[in-house]
Amino acid sequence: MDHAESMDGDRPGTCPTFHAAIELIGRRWNGVILQSLMTGEARFAELRRRIPGITDAMLSSRLRDLEQAGLLERRVSSGPPVGVHYTLTGLGVELGPVLDAIAAWGSSWSATVEDDARDESS
Amino acid sequence: MDHAESMDGDRPGTCPTFHAAIELIGRRWNGVILQSLMTGEARFAELRRRIPGITDAMLSSRLRDLEQAGLLERRVSSGPPVGVHYTLTGLGVELGPVLDAIAAWGSSWSATVEDDARDESS
Repeated sequence: MDHAESMDGDRPGTCPTFHAAIELIGRRWNGVILQSLMTGEARFAELRRRIPGITDAMLSSRLRDLEQAGLLERRVSSGPPVGVHYTLTGLGVELGPVLDAIAAWGSSWSATVEDDARDESS
Repeated sequence: MDHAESMDGDRPGTCPTFHAAIELIGRRWNGVILQSLMTGEARFAELRRRIPGITDAMLSSRLRDLEQAGLLERRVSSGPPVGVHYTLTGLGVELGPVLDAIAAWGSSWSATVEDDARDESS
């Protein structure tokens, strides 16, 4: 216990930056919005179509949050057709490998949970 | 855009497993609770002390969620002293490198946001 306690100050768990970062990317819908933009710029309607279940209001609100946090940029094109485009900033793009690591862990988590359910029903 | 669209199906962004995983670890307090347990087993009161701002009710609720998700185990010791101990499962421990990657990105994010604020005020 003393060992754990003494290491505590070195762990990102007690770090406000880590706390803010994980809750920003994990906030409802933010992860899938960021992941959807990893393939490049997208228009609002495209994002809406790629993310089943999200409402226009929620998508607008989250895009604004992520823009304010410096993770994406909003560009209005004069057209035609006139459109609002969203693209990741450098900081947003740097999240790519992080999101891939979360996805890889998620696959392992999902497989384990399914195995446990199968064991219990057999 | 066609390229982005055609790649869309291959991206974890459209994957329910990724969606569930990122929102589980990013749910308010969960990230710092998981990070606090990376150093090993801890008692409820220790976790409470390590995580400034969390209430008893919130910590209990989140520990129960994470236990149900298969990320940690709860053990009641007969004592003395009697206590409730929490420890990460294998799946929980596998999140270590993922949380480290989020912390590293968070440092870069924090530095950029601070630089931008300095530029604007100069």
